Amino acid sequence: MFAPVYLDHNATTPLDEGALEAMLPYLREQYGNASSRHEYGRAARRAIDDARQRVACALGAHPTEVIFTSGGSEANNLFLKGAAACRKPGLVAISAIEHPCVREPARQLAKTGWRLRELLVDAKCRVASADLRTSSPTDTPNLLSVMMANNETGVVQDLIPLLDGVKGTDVWCHSDAVQAFGKIPVNFRQLNAAGLHALTVSAHKIGGPKGAGALVLDKRVELAPLIAGGGHERGLRSGTENVAAIVGFGVAAERAVASLDLVSRHLSALQATLEIGLGALGASIFGAGAERLPNTSYFAVAGVDGETLVGKLDRAGFAVASGAACSSANPEISRVLQAMAVVPELARGAVRVSLGASNTSQQIHDFLAALAATLGDLKALRAVSA
Amino acid sequence: MFAPVYLDHNATTPLDEGALEAMLPYLREQYGNASSRHEYGRAARRAIDDARQRVACALGAHPTEVIFTSGGSEANNLFLKGAAACRKPGLVAISAIEHPCVREPARQLAKTGWRLRELLVDAKCRVASADLRTSSPTDTPNLLSVMMANNETGVVQDLIPLLDGVKGTDVWCHSDAVQAFGKIPVNFRQLNAAGLHALTVSAHKIGGPKGAGALVLDKRVELAPLIAGGGHERGLRSGTENVAAIVGFGVAAERAVASLDLVSRHLSALQATLEIGLGALGASIFGAGAERLPNTSYFAVAGVDGETLVGKLDRAGFAVASGAACSSANPEISRVLQAMAVVPELARGAVRVSLGASNTSQQIHDFLAALAATLGDLKALRAVSA
Repeated sequence: MFAPVYLDHNATTPLDEGALEAMLPYLREQYGNASSRHEYGRAARRAIDDARQRVACALGAHPTEVIFTSGGSEANNLFLKGAAACRKPGLVAISAIEHPCVREPARQLAKTGWRLRELLVDAKCRVASADLRTSSPTDTPNLLSVMMANNETGVVQDLIPLLDGVKGTDVWCHSDAVQAFGKIPVNFRQLNAAGLHALTVSAHKIGGPKGAGALVLDKRVELAPLIAGGGHERGLRSGTENVAAIVGFGVAAERAVASLDLVSRHLSALQATLEIGLGALGASIFGAGAERLPNTSYFAVAGVDGETLVGKLDRAGFAVASGAACSSANPEISRVLQAMAVVPELARGAVRVSLGASNTSQQIHDFLAALAATLGDLKALRAVSA
Repeated sequence: MFAPVYLDHNATTPLDEGALEAMLPYLREQYGNASSRHEYGRAARRAIDDARQRVACALGAHPTEVIFTSGGSEANNLFLKGAAACRKPGLVAISAIEHPCVREPARQLAKTGWRLRELLVDAKCRVASADLRTSSPTDTPNLLSVMMANNETGVVQDLIPLLDGVKGTDVWCHSDAVQAFGKIPVNFRQLNAAGLHALTVSAHKIGGPKGAGALVLDKRVELAPLIAGGGHERGLRSGTENVAAIVGFGVAAERAVASLDLVSRHLSALQATLEIGLGALGASIFGAGAERLPNTSYFAVAGVDGETLVGKLDRAGFAVASGAACSSANPEISRVLQAMAVVPELARGAVRVSLGASNTSQQIHDFLAALAATLGDLKALRAVSA
């Protein structure tokens, strides 16, 4: 099989071999429903309990704080809608750079009596905590959701000043940690002490399988279930547990945290090489100068269309993205870059490279060579057509 | 490994080997996010398109009518809450024997301005269509959900008279077909012509993996998404698609329908043997005389506790259920049997045997022998303690 070099780990990651090995028995002989009382069911229940322990441990949380969901989108929707259903309609505040699976449920709330406020970001993609603090006492949010790291730019938010800004109010605070988890340390106990009530993680972004995620939730926060039914996950998420995916999530979470320091150093080194090369090719890096994930470089070359570049790089054997994968079908300019006030001409050129632990220095050099050649071709083409 | 005889297929089924084979490439080298534009993403998209075609074909639906979800519970919640969000609050009618993942979202609606009505069933677990027809014009439901086959008794509902009873009103009709699919013919096109707008199916009940299900939906019905975000599944279900599970679902659906006649004959033969044996042991079969699924026998022996019997049969090497798996943790009497007006003393004895294609005649004979021995032990114990 032709296997292009995969440089799109923020969209999804290859499934860790250890995670797959752990999953296979639950896709074969151990097929029980974890709610069944017989041996097949009990074996499935033990596997889920074990995975819950691993995920909790990886996140500095207690196992009873982990609510398994089908993924990050569901967990984000569960927090926002589930919390809103338990509160009087008020103000929901999210950052202007949230993933659509935070922004869209917040917009749905805005149709049911809630007011929605989008917190501004600066040119480096950092949420302005002052924006939250200067709001009048009557304009204090009841629900707040600010992501830990942005999926497009990789810019990491400093959540502590944001949480400080709403301290003492009765806001419930949530953070989408889907892109942060596995790339930088994420500790729920510390964040909870600083005022965060819930965070979202996803298995398939950290070497686990698609089909599992979690909302980690301070148990003092009351949520209505998004999926109601048999009462699974402490009544907060009904439906037969996806045993194999949860098992894979547990193993992947444990492995991601165990190798975090080493992987982080490796990714940082590749990122430095990549960005020196990108600079030499005249690319601008979005969010440069802000704290960023060690694996994400989001860039544009003036006058070069991002979609075109991604297509040509794909044919040259390199899989990169022209924006968040789940909105790639949408040819609009990235909302994140709009929020950062990037000029449309440059924003249209946006290309995202997101690295993973298996990427090599050689692959980065090959990618830069392919990019240089592609840019050269495009320039020659423009020269001919001019 | 000690492998008890599995007789609990209504809780979940072993994963079909062909389905697993089809899934493995998507758990290994084909790990792309189906929203990505590069080759990894396009391969994932093709696999989902192909699976959508298979599931649609198995159900007599058009591929664009299939909305993939994480499972049956999500699909049922999506229909009820998603439809309710697009209508003025009115009357939601469900049968008194619905699975909790229909009943609980309906109850959530009842807290937000909707009126909830539970349709009665007779002693044989059949929904009384007269109950719906005799309602006054002002009491016509806006949403109706009646399951196709009951998970506990296996009793099959005759949906046509129910749909006829509300013809010409502006009700949106849904049926939970999770237990029917793969065991009796389910044809969405025919049911749609008779007035049904949507039905729910689940992969893991038909030899597919846990983590995939679908809502099959008449496109004239407007739904608000339960999980909002990147706009996957025509905007009705956001979140990175669980590619491998969806692929497995497609293969399992195709296989289930291809072998339906043969499997149905095999199951009916086993069921007949089982129920003759159960009768000889003095068991009453719930729903006997009504049309039932060919794989489900729900019974009780007067004076014998169902939980105790299930525990003893488990130790004897037979995995059966004492009620719907997902509420087995709840020691209450089955709501289904309550709705059928079964006396509590008999209802407490309820044990469900649900067969699958791989079960053999020998296993049924062995099960009956084990059951006879267990009942004998329990009687001897009572004689001693009396």
